[in-house]
Amino acid sequence: MTELKGFFFPRTASGQASLIPSPPWYYSGDLLTVEYRTDPARVAELLPAPLELAPEDPGAVALIWADWQSCSASREELLDPVRSQYKECFVVVRCSFRGEVYSRCVYIWVDKDFAIARGMHQGYPKKLGTMWQTRPHAFPHASPVIGPGGQFGATLAAGDRRLADVVLTLREQSDGNGFVNGHPMAHHRIYPDIAGGRDVYSELIRSGGAEFEGGQSWRGDVEVNLYDSPTEELSRLTVDEIIGGYYRQVGVVWNGGTTLERLI
Amino acid sequence: MTELKGFFFPRTASGQASLIPSPPWYYSGDLLTVEYRTDPARVAELLPAPLELAPEDPGAVALIWADWQSCSASREELLDPVRSQYKECFVVVRCSFRGEVYSRCVYIWVDKDFAIARGMHQGYPKKLGTMWQTRPHAFPHASPVIGPGGQFGATLAAGDRRLADVVLTLREQSDGNGFVNGHPMAHHRIYPDIAGGRDVYSELIRSGGAEFEGGQSWRGDVEVNLYDSPTEELSRLTVDEIIGGYYRQVGVVWNGGTTLERLI
Amino acid sequence: MTELKGFFFPRTASGQASLIPSPPWYYSGDLLTVEYRTDPARVAELLPAPLELAPEDPGAVALIWADWQSCSASREELLDPVRSQYKECFVVVRCSFRGEVYSRCVYIWVDKDFAIARGMHQGYPKKLGTMWQTRPHAFPHASPVIGPGGQFGATLAAGDRRLADVVLTLREQSDGNGFVNGHPMAHHRIYPDIAGGRDVYSELIRSGGAEFEGGQSWRGDVEVNLYDSPTEELSRLTVDEIIGGYYRQVGVVWNGGTTLERLI
Amino acid sequence: MTELKGFFFPRTASGQASLIPSPPWYYSGDLLTVEYRTDPARVAELLPAPLELAPEDPGAVALIWADWQSCSASREELLDPVRSQYKECFVVVRCSFRGEVYSRCVYIWVDKDFAIARGMHQGYPKKLGTMWQTRPHAFPHASPVIGPGGQFGATLAAGDRRLADVVLTLREQSDGNGFVNGHPMAHHRIYPDIAGGRDVYSELIRSGGAEFEGGQSWRGDVEVNLYDSPTEELSRLTVDEIIGGYYRQVGVVWNGGTTLERLI
Repeated sequence: MTELKGFFFPRTASGQASLIPSPPWYYSGDLLTVEYRTDPARVAELLPAPLELAPEDPGAVALIWADWQSCSASREELLDPVRSQYKECFVVVRCSFRGEVYSRCVYIWVDKDFAIARGMHQGYPKKLGTMWQTRPHAFPHASPVIGPGGQFGATLAAGDRRLADVVLTLREQSDGNGFVNGHPMAHHRIYPDIAGGRDVYSELIRSGGAEFEGGQSWRGDVEVNLYDSPTEELSRLTVDEIIGGYYRQVGVVWNGGTTLERLI
Repeated sequence: MTELKGFFFPRTASGQASLIPSPPWYYSGDLLTVEYRTDPARVAELLPAPLELAPEDPGAVALIWADWQSCSASREELLDPVRSQYKECFVVVRCSFRGEVYSRCVYIWVDKDFAIARGMHQGYPKKLGTMWQTRPHAFPHASPVIGPGGQFGATLAAGDRRLADVVLTLREQSDGNGFVNGHPMAHHRIYPDIAGGRDVYSELIRSGGAEFEGGQSWRGDVEVNLYDSPTEELSRLTVDEIIGGYYRQVGVVWNGGTTLERLI
Repeated sequence: MTELKGFFFPRTASGQASLIPSPPWYYSGDLLTVEYRTDPARVAELLPAPLELAPEDPGAVALIWADWQSCSASREELLDPVRSQYKECFVVVRCSFRGEVYSRCVYIWVDKDFAIARGMHQGYPKKLGTMWQTRPHAFPHASPVIGPGGQFGATLAAGDRRLADVVLTLREQSDGNGFVNGHPMAHHRIYPDIAGGRDVYSELIRSGGAEFEGGQSWRGDVEVNLYDSPTEELSRLTVDEIIGGYYRQVGVVWNGGTTLERLI
Repeated sequence: MTELKGFFFPRTASGQASLIPSPPWYYSGDLLTVEYRTDPARVAELLPAPLELAPEDPGAVALIWADWQSCSASREELLDPVRSQYKECFVVVRCSFRGEVYSRCVYIWVDKDFAIARGMHQGYPKKLGTMWQTRPHAFPHASPVIGPGGQFGATLAAGDRRLADVVLTLREQSDGNGFVNGHPMAHHRIYPDIAGGRDVYSELIRSGGAEFEGGQSWRGDVEVNLYDSPTEELSRLTVDEIIGGYYRQVGVVWNGGTTLERLI
């Protein structure tokens, strides 16, 4: 009998073909974050019981673009960078569970299959999208500076429709790049029954970075546009009040999480 | 408390944003199939216990390209065809479980996220790839005929590497388009533990078309090339002997499966 | 001294690497055409002197999607179909030159580089875009019929923005698939001066199909949406009155054109 | 009569839809360069008369990956970065014309249409490809350092086939990033006759950066693989002897060139 190897599908005798390697997973990237307030009722719509709205500032939303390079412990993906570079845009709200506040990703788009598979594992509801984010560079000929006046744009599209775009103009250094994505994540991991009609597996998990290193954060003025799509609901999280816009470069390690509650 | 809707992630109050709708799922498409024999030991490597090699012709492999249009019962995806058209290439072997012969997809590449999510549900180990397949057309100016002498090419790439290509020259009508993919599918559905190290969910399921309609099959001569890749193992299934090449247009409905054995 | 070969760049000793082969070029494909009237002044904006508006129905516009397979005389591209399949959407108006009526493509988007290069040669102002068009199929499980009630959608996006989408519901057979794209094409071929500021080459050419074969045309009801984009002007050609929607399968050969007037 | 505006096609009354803006064009980017020697006869094959081999080291080749952000004088593209970011890989040799040594790009692949159009103007024989290049980052979690031991991979694919990949391991600072691409470019700008059979426009032009600023160059050890493709000839430039591998960040302005010789 064969014992198959591989962290996720497909599994083979050697594990070589597995779509993703075993954690830990390593990331270096640039984050462009917009935080704003929407109607808390729109956030509540996205929180299944027993999750509740966060007690303070419950309508706060973070809309985050990330331009990543990622790899496994072998670092081999870095030398064949089609396997390590990807972009994403994700939407984070906060929620409360058993008296503790968590962050929760409610929508996320990525542009590589390995990122989708990691999301399936981590409870991020990933779809494919196309994301673009202005890059800083050592030479300013066609690049903003990370500093006062530096302007960064970011766009999100899926299904051949633009879903969001922002322009961030940096103003000053800040203590961090926002608070909405600053808690451990509370995500559902679900698996529909092959027979249909209900889930056959469901759990609420807690996860966060095993290591985190962040550069100087910058804060600035931001313009945000959200656009409708028949297959998306991002635009329901209307931008009622801008909290702030932020830019930060980070290094992260992710190495698993814990089950908060097994539901099925 | 909010009750979230949606067949799969992301789930929302309305379910509108779900990556995939509930089954049944409908398909119209063209299949280019190559069947060949490899070393049965290479097939056995891909069959986890308690699956065993099929008793007859255990080294038979089907390498299949499909050019699909698909939709839900609403058929709305057909009018925004970025949501309904996709291409795939997949590799099927046979296996035996409790005395019955099953087909089993061991590798599969698709080019849309909704197809990946359907595969996660159905136990197809889907990755993203780029597939191309010659199309028949009413006018022969730049198209083969589906008939004697008609030539169809098909290619598969992933990770910016070509993995396979074939040329099929039709010769004559045939009774079907091969036998390797002709059984119910026996697939594993797995979910790694968020804490790492093992699966937290695993089952062996049985699934097949709820409805199937097929046009006239054609058989022909076929040339096959498989290419190595550091992230794939397709080329381990070496082409030792060609069984046949086939072309067929089909209509299919998929509407769930049944659990053969819950493993975890 | 080396004599380089190749119809277009790059040129080499053998010509093998040329982005496009020499004409004739062969095409098999499906055309979804929407014809409508816009303000003739908006058409006139796109006609450089000495072109003038067509004397009759000068505001008529054709918005056409095409799903093509194409090849050279060798037909070798058909067996490596990444080199033969492409999709396009283009906008055609009519104009008058020396008393003769011509068709003229004012905007066009394609999804392959060989199509861009052919457009450079033929005077089609091609950009990259993503186009989707519902396909007919032998089995109706996830496909419309080419017949009464058959519904076809088509979409166009570029720069991560949707530019146009239509839904066509077939009603009855028709004598043809519109009149706007039915004349020889009058296109400019231009080359800006490497020193800047003006063109160094400019001519008005006439071109059309060397051979054409068309299947039964179908006419139907059509809904059209055009969307704004900062890098496009398609939406200036507002849809003031629908003329008709059409579906037709065709085979075409293109084999060069003639110079109407050398301008520079 | 309408006077149409736009640096290149499509031209309209406002020029808004033009695929590319007028020069000057601004670039910030990272260059990974591999220089090697091939058989000078293979270089000579790519030099049309009256170009001749460079008198010294005539078989020297530069294979260069560039990860660019680019914009016009308005800098508006930087805020909608789908319009400013692109990647490319290009192959440069040297040649001699009237006693002066020039660089000459013989093959180049890019991943955006605006880059293709700029190449048509500049005489770069651009095709579409997919390029990946390891990025340096402020945090080393999933990134090399630009310094001793830093490893950078780069890959090139087109037509769903990998054409080249390299791994560069930085060793020490160097005075520059090679010599092959260090001269003014001597490029042909060609336009085939719409009637077929010959060119109707051909000139040899000279072009180079109007401004250039470069960071510290690094030199290292490099491994190179070139792969065959039926539509490419890159692999004819066999790697007979490695000269060096380099990494450098640069800022560039391009603002036109001059005609060396009008040929047709």
